[in-house]
Amino acid sequence: MPRYALRVEYHGGPFAGWQRQADQPSVQGAIEHALAKLEPRDHTIAAAGRTDAGVHGLAQVAHCDMEKDWDPFRLSEALNHHLKPDPVAIVACAQVAGDWHARFSARERRYLFRILMRRAPVTHLKGLVWRVNAALDVEAMQAGADHLVGRHDFTTFRSSICQADSPVKTLDRLDVTRVDSPHGPEVQFDVRARSFLHNQVRSFVGTLERVGAGAWAPEDVKAALVACDRAACGPVCPPDGLYLAGVGYPADPFVASVEFHQPGTRAT
Amino acid sequence: MPRYALRVEYHGGPFAGWQRQADQPSVQGAIEHALAKLEPRDHTIAAAGRTDAGVHGLAQVAHCDMEKDWDPFRLSEALNHHLKPDPVAIVACAQVAGDWHARFSARERRYLFRILMRRAPVTHLKGLVWRVNAALDVEAMQAGADHLVGRHDFTTFRSSICQADSPVKTLDRLDVTRVDSPHGPEVQFDVRARSFLHNQVRSFVGTLERVGAGAWAPEDVKAALVACDRAACGPVCPPDGLYLAGVGYPADPFVASVEFHQPGTRAT
Repeated sequence: MPRYALRVEYHGGPFAGWQRQADQPSVQGAIEHALAKLEPRDHTIAAAGRTDAGVHGLAQVAHCDMEKDWDPFRLSEALNHHLKPDPVAIVACAQVAGDWHARFSARERRYLFRILMRRAPVTHLKGLVWRVNAALDVEAMQAGADHLVGRHDFTTFRSSICQADSPVKTLDRLDVTRVDSPHGPEVQFDVRARSFLHNQVRSFVGTLERVGAGAWAPEDVKAALVACDRAACGPVCPPDGLYLAGVGYPADPFVASVEFHQPGTRAT
Repeated sequence: MPRYALRVEYHGGPFAGWQRQADQPSVQGAIEHALAKLEPRDHTIAAAGRTDAGVHGLAQVAHCDMEKDWDPFRLSEALNHHLKPDPVAIVACAQVAGDWHARFSARERRYLFRILMRRAPVTHLKGLVWRVNAALDVEAMQAGADHLVGRHDFTTFRSSICQADSPVKTLDRLDVTRVDSPHGPEVQFDVRARSFLHNQVRSFVGTLERVGAGAWAPEDVKAALVACDRAACGPVCPPDGLYLAGVGYPADPFVASVEFHQPGTRAT
């Protein structure tokens, strides 16, 4: 059976999360339902990151096995047709080796988190950012974040229902940047690691927001980390501003795919 | 009666347009309804631009007259409270002179238009961009746009129901820029003039898209302009990607307002 890698963008709002569930809409379920329209049978796809309810995909990566030899571009077009009107889009598709695995071959997950700093309710960005009333101190947040980078026991920043074998992970990057947008100033987090614990990014962001608001000192983040105690974590932030922004593999599986994002050819 | 200037952000999707209508939701109607919660009577507000159905406001400017002396910050907060759950937000508010007028005092309107170039359907940006399948040639589009800048008879780019006295307008700016976004490459239009004809921006964008796709040469835009014939216009593009992005006045009415967008104070 030929295997295909799919780069998937989705709005997390209407879904109970990535993972298929018996009685609730899921992104995985939506894609498997679309696959069954192409090859009528049960489909089970795997993904690099099992995002929670309300969390968005910008560049989630999944794979599927097909019976027929599909042209990757036609496969993505057919899936997008059957995914309507769900807010799920296959933005790239490529055939991969039979032992390539969206989850187990992945070497890096990248998450983006967006905070919008303003008093007024959000309109265009509803569900897409976490709005906070206060102007946050981005330098203090970065100072706090710096304590988290590296190899640590992240028990403090791990949900109690996390199923990972170990709380020890290596955080490769946690960059906090102020970005001006037409909707107001944002704080954006670029968070990268080989893998994450459950609710780890939202635990980081909720804690660092407390630093940005002046309620915590940057050094308090270090104290929370070394406490290795879930109770030492700041409040877990809402899912609205969180995006799975990319997945790194030893070789880019989409390098040979028709590029949807890079218009190299002039349409005529 | 004290007069207040309001800077308004809104999602155009659920509305029949800015202008109040008897039997359809409008942005003006939503704000007037909220004002009536604060001072129960009929309210009539004026705005710099009467955007069409589906067109967004990023920084629309309106004004209202109140009986009571409102603190501008409290007025905006109270309006935002009563505007829920409509996607309309008062992002700035300031008291202005009694002869200041959101529409007649305005010296410049700025519109933004966003095209997203990709095959896959939109998810997060649904209703917020015009998605086109083709990779557009931005340099050719700018060359076509350059023919439109300046003082011209814009009959070609004017809706047949336009009520302006004259089709002669001065277009101050029409910049076409490629912008990379996490969703794919965009073409963004920055369009500025003292005032616009009905459907003028969407007529420009629809015509220039034809240039970007190679169906029109840049010089064909000049021929269409000098024809002074509505039939010479390219297809009018959809409203989804259009935003009223700013209004210029001889003096910024919001200079003294509490700044929602510029966090000058550290929250403690």
